[in-house]
Amino acid sequence: MISFRNDYSEVAHPRIIEKLLACATQQNDGYGLDVHSRKAADSIRRLLERDADIHFIPGGTQTNLLVIAACLRPFECVLTCDTGHINVHETGAIEGTGHKVVTVPHVDGKLTPEGIRQLFDTHESEHMVKPRMVYLSNSTELGTVYTKAELAEIRKVCDELGLLLFLDGARLGSALCSVFCDLTLSDLAELCDLFYIGGTKNGALFGEALVIINDALKSDFRYMIKNRGAMLAKGFVTGIQFEVLFEDEEPLYFALAEHANRQANRIADALTEKGYPFYATPAGTNQLFAIVTAEKMAELEKEFAFNIEKPLPDGRFAIRFVTSWATTDEMVDALIAAL
Amino acid sequence: MISFRNDYSEVAHPRIIEKLLACATQQNDGYGLDVHSRKAADSIRRLLERDADIHFIPGGTQTNLLVIAACLRPFECVLTCDTGHINVHETGAIEGTGHKVVTVPHVDGKLTPEGIRQLFDTHESEHMVKPRMVYLSNSTELGTVYTKAELAEIRKVCDELGLLLFLDGARLGSALCSVFCDLTLSDLAELCDLFYIGGTKNGALFGEALVIINDALKSDFRYMIKNRGAMLAKGFVTGIQFEVLFEDEEPLYFALAEHANRQANRIADALTEKGYPFYATPAGTNQLFAIVTAEKMAELEKEFAFNIEKPLPDGRFAIRFVTSWATTDEMVDALIAAL
Amino acid sequence: MISFRNDYSEVAHPRIIEKLLACATQQNDGYGLDVHSRKAADSIRRLLERDADIHFIPGGTQTNLLVIAACLRPFECVLTCDTGHINVHETGAIEGTGHKVVTVPHVDGKLTPEGIRQLFDTHESEHMVKPRMVYLSNSTELGTVYTKAELAEIRKVCDELGLLLFLDGARLGSALCSVFCDLTLSDLAELCDLFYIGGTKNGALFGEALVIINDALKSDFRYMIKNRGAMLAKGFVTGIQFEVLFEDEEPLYFALAEHANRQANRIADALTEKGYPFYATPAGTNQLFAIVTAEKMAELEKEFAFNIEKPLPDGRFAIRFVTSWATTDEMVDALIAAL
Amino acid sequence: MISFRNDYSEVAHPRIIEKLLACATQQNDGYGLDVHSRKAADSIRRLLERDADIHFIPGGTQTNLLVIAACLRPFECVLTCDTGHINVHETGAIEGTGHKVVTVPHVDGKLTPEGIRQLFDTHESEHMVKPRMVYLSNSTELGTVYTKAELAEIRKVCDELGLLLFLDGARLGSALCSVFCDLTLSDLAELCDLFYIGGTKNGALFGEALVIINDALKSDFRYMIKNRGAMLAKGFVTGIQFEVLFEDEEPLYFALAEHANRQANRIADALTEKGYPFYATPAGTNQLFAIVTAEKMAELEKEFAFNIEKPLPDGRFAIRFVTSWATTDEMVDALIAAL
Repeated sequence: MISFRNDYSEVAHPRIIEKLLACATQQNDGYGLDVHSRKAADSIRRLLERDADIHFIPGGTQTNLLVIAACLRPFECVLTCDTGHINVHETGAIEGTGHKVVTVPHVDGKLTPEGIRQLFDTHESEHMVKPRMVYLSNSTELGTVYTKAELAEIRKVCDELGLLLFLDGARLGSALCSVFCDLTLSDLAELCDLFYIGGTKNGALFGEALVIINDALKSDFRYMIKNRGAMLAKGFVTGIQFEVLFEDEEPLYFALAEHANRQANRIADALTEKGYPFYATPAGTNQLFAIVTAEKMAELEKEFAFNIEKPLPDGRFAIRFVTSWATTDEMVDALIAAL
Repeated sequence: MISFRNDYSEVAHPRIIEKLLACATQQNDGYGLDVHSRKAADSIRRLLERDADIHFIPGGTQTNLLVIAACLRPFECVLTCDTGHINVHETGAIEGTGHKVVTVPHVDGKLTPEGIRQLFDTHESEHMVKPRMVYLSNSTELGTVYTKAELAEIRKVCDELGLLLFLDGARLGSALCSVFCDLTLSDLAELCDLFYIGGTKNGALFGEALVIINDALKSDFRYMIKNRGAMLAKGFVTGIQFEVLFEDEEPLYFALAEHANRQANRIADALTEKGYPFYATPAGTNQLFAIVTAEKMAELEKEFAFNIEKPLPDGRFAIRFVTSWATTDEMVDALIAAL
Repeated sequence: MISFRNDYSEVAHPRIIEKLLACATQQNDGYGLDVHSRKAADSIRRLLERDADIHFIPGGTQTNLLVIAACLRPFECVLTCDTGHINVHETGAIEGTGHKVVTVPHVDGKLTPEGIRQLFDTHESEHMVKPRMVYLSNSTELGTVYTKAELAEIRKVCDELGLLLFLDGARLGSALCSVFCDLTLSDLAELCDLFYIGGTKNGALFGEALVIINDALKSDFRYMIKNRGAMLAKGFVTGIQFEVLFEDEEPLYFALAEHANRQANRIADALTEKGYPFYATPAGTNQLFAIVTAEKMAELEKEFAFNIEKPLPDGRFAIRFVTSWATTDEMVDALIAAL
Repeated sequence: MISFRNDYSEVAHPRIIEKLLACATQQNDGYGLDVHSRKAADSIRRLLERDADIHFIPGGTQTNLLVIAACLRPFECVLTCDTGHINVHETGAIEGTGHKVVTVPHVDGKLTPEGIRQLFDTHESEHMVKPRMVYLSNSTELGTVYTKAELAEIRKVCDELGLLLFLDGARLGSALCSVFCDLTLSDLAELCDLFYIGGTKNGALFGEALVIINDALKSDFRYMIKNRGAMLAKGFVTGIQFEVLFEDEEPLYFALAEHANRQANRIADALTEKGYPFYATPAGTNQLFAIVTAEKMAELEKEFAFNIEKPLPDGRFAIRFVTSWATTDEMVDALIAAL
């Protein structure tokens, strides 16, 4: 069985694990105050081209809840689109910190400036939650990407309405390496108040690099991390991983994402060629949503693992293929042959 | 600089990292539903000699807050001694879940049946929090251990007063391998409602194995884990580590703890021989608290890293030495020579 | 200026205040454990025709958050329709207790069995919140009412899906006295796990009588009330009010609601006669939603206070008229004349 | 049975209820935005001799939890003495908002500058909660009072350590009218960041007037009130009460407190004269703590209701007598005769 179920099926890129092995008995300071974490943060800051606080957090849901709990007062809410990860797939983690998530319908998996404004405008008095933050993901839950122009428009609305902009980058590598996306890490640093660079879904054992740009949000963030149980005693384990991912002139992080995208693009081309309709327009990232008949799906399931996104009213199914840094040519060839 | 600062200074035991490397590109199911996690749980269950739900959680504070949030209603509190980790060193993580931690003074770092009863008795009406859980650590923050008889007495009080018993086992390996402790994993399974087996402080990269014995506390625990951001996408990374720690007839987990204890015992013997007083009576575990003069401390600090537990009124200092699975004979020899 | 803005504009029915005055210096036990509260609860229980725990809570949002916080585990959510008060107008009070509110579009301001089932079915694993409670209001935010048959259908779905049924009765008096509603307090006691009888919007200074039917939800509720700051030291002030509202053979509570409904019905008849369209079908309760032109609205605003529910796309406005126990014939005559 | 159990046994001062009756059918704006609330706030502001935001909150525990939740970030804690109401008698309401309460032993029921400093100094890193607010009550749980000099000293420490100063004035009337207390409302406004003027325990049906002095704490407080369910629809009911309490040149509020103190002083004199020892030194307020034998206590209990503060090791009991605005000369005469 070959899995296209997700990009976190494999353990980790060997270079990362080999570095951990090389450091096995090295003594380091705890709680993220070690040399490796510092070097990793420095490497990332170089790419940001500006100063930023960088914290390494074990997981994505945790990063989302930490950021939202740290930035919002009890009566403030976060705006996102209905498909937003924090709205659907985090088991109420954000509400667990006391904050409402309010939503507008997505457009290709994305938030729009109009959607944000419309949502904001319905919240007019102290009888409703007060909008304070916009949350979006790049790439999105539907594999689509925000362009620089789109993100700049959203930033403009945020500035106008007094909203913070937080970008969930669980799949940021794939987004930045998409041919449809003209954003760089440096652009994100210019446009967002905070964002994170996902490691879990791009070759690490686990870990997300949270980047805080807005000075007002930096203070005491380590207290916040500890308060939510997100401060690993061996913070250097995350630090070493991001050190490896970003130490090269051409960072491994992007090489891995490019590989995943390339394999997805091959599948996308095959799907197009064979006439499969798409549930979401392919955007050059590592997630594809195709529409197949029940029979075809059953046939594919014999050899391949993948997620069913949604049963469609006409009996067909929207299914999702995800590639990763570890997806081989042979796996993709096999899938293309079976399509 | 040789560090005796703590037992989480080194990355991880090489066997664990080597296994991760061997599995690097292996595809696994996500969120802890993989083969490795299952095998690790089975190995642990064999030692428990009874059925139990086992969940692998990234960290200790996180495990504590998860368990307490899952088991208590909003107005219920957890009882512990003043030195309890949840009371002092978790940045309000437990209160962050909405629950008060109420305390009695410790006796050698431990809770006593009388202390629990006395604390319980002061809570008499709905104007005060309602006691519901006893939290204790083995080994304790002072390196001391509970014996089987002591724990059985506490269990008796818990049964009488309707309290759950939760044991924090961040340093459980060291406790169970102490010559002063006659408890086994099977005993803990008999006496506790839930407890955890700490990996972070005994050779793993990170990770604690939470063991739920009480049937009433098992339901929907995976929802709880996800709700607090503690469910790693790559749950198998934790699973593989505990698989290695517990797969052998003579589990590596205990071998590592025994090594750490042995090195600590050597230091304890040297301290005794050289006439250093102890701040807490050595209990055969990997933590030692000695009393030294300011001059001696300054001298030691040139070569060794360690924590200062407390400045004493007479100008001397209580300092802590911690050994680990990676502490070598040479390190200990050097420390003994310097004492 | 005559206000039809809401049913909580006036201070309280004189009989209630007179009784408070008569008791001014009477000494009572605190925290709701007094004779008046007991008598009020007994009077209500007689109408329920079954045993129930009854607690008097100062306000409606507070009652909602108390009930939800008391009944749900951290990862559980409450289902309601998009217009639900807890979803829109409580400034995130429910999320403030850690729980997500999930919604389906309303049908005439109401939840339907199909809506509940559909919402439930989209929540399928521990990656999403777990549905545990259905929340609905009677009368609803649009002044509509549930019939006995409708509520029985919803109860059936709840039983089937393992959901608790909680009815917000902030305007229960008006609902039960509507000619379109065949429910009694006794029916509610049979169909709901918990519900409340609103005092604030039906003649009291403040206060809601929370009725807990389901035995499993009764334990330690007073702890919960205190924990959220909802236990008044002078609980007897609320008790005395409900004593007055329910002590008569023909309870004042229903007389006041009938009066309010009667005045609203007169306005409804006038609106119909004069050809005003309705934004929500009048349901015999004390809330009416009519559609008027901008000019008419401006004209009415000179003499009357009322809420604008919504500007409509065609430039007209949906406006709301609310009557109360204190609305006089003269006020209604004036409004009808102006329409 | 004559009750000296507390100062919230009686319903309310007749003048307050009469005013409510006079306004019974008057239409007012909701949620505290009415004329009465504005007038009450203006009257109080005059006494403060400076600008301040004033909000009327139904109860004391609610005010405490609101203030603390509004002012602190998730990892911040509040400092108080062990007898502090928020520490002992609020059923975890503060922890319910996510914040730890940390304590030092009280000195005569009071916090001292040294106690605050000592508590602050033990919190040194992100592994512990971060001190942010000092909470104290005046009068205290033991009926003692802070002088102006004492409070100024505490303010100085707060300024030095970056702590907010919040004064719980549930019994502020009694404190300010004590001959041992030289503070005025204007002094409090100068020394505190926020404090409240308790109505429940000084003649009102319920209600506390929260005074926010520190500009940084004012923004969006009404959102906060609503978010915790503390915003009464009929906010004017609280407004009217404080209007009555503060409208006169010589405010009724102080007259009521003086009456209560005077009655307590008579009891204190009798206790002294008859040689009863005190558990806490009488401080001219309406709470007295005397020590009596078991026999005497049993005898008193036949005619009088009072609280037992604590059984003493020698078999005697510390008991509490509380007087109120409604305590008559006859009641006090009877008690003195029985002593």
